[in-house]
Amino acid sequence: MAKVKVHVFLKPGVLDVQGKAVEGALKGLGWSGVSDVRVGKLIEFDFEGADAEAEAKRMCETLLANTVIESYRVEVA
Amino acid sequence: MAKVKVHVFLKPGVLDVQGKAVEGALKGLGWSGVSDVRVGKLIEFDFEGADAEAEAKRMCETLLANTVIESYRVEVA
Repeated sequence: MAKVKVHVFLKPGVLDVQGKAVEGALKGLGWSGVSDVRVGKLIEFDFEGADAEAEAKRMCETLLANTVIESYRVEVA
Repeated sequence: MAKVKVHVFLKPGVLDVQGKAVEGALKGLGWSGVSDVRVGKLIEFDFEGADAEAEAKRMCETLLANTVIESYRVEVA
């Protein structure tokens, strides 16, 4: 059984409104040294079967990431 | 300047409805070997200032994580 971690994040050129909101809130709380905040998703699961990494990539393409605006990174442990 | 990564995830006993939805969808698409899906957030930002790790922990306690139901992990690079 493989432990799979998938990190899904917005592509660099895409405006991250959630990140901007977090950045504004942190600055409002006094953390003026914060910049370039990006918020992504981390999906972790157990996978039973062959070739977990290739299957996880197929899952990303099919369901987990919107590949028009998001990129993903798969880690298998 | 420090690159900070904060991983926010639901505590083990808390029902992860988003994870359950993803698990159901993946199984519906034919990936029957998937189990124990958990969906968390990954917040990345640049921090200018002293003691990035302690400040990031304070940010989690104050804003980034709901510590009643969520845990967090801070990585500074």
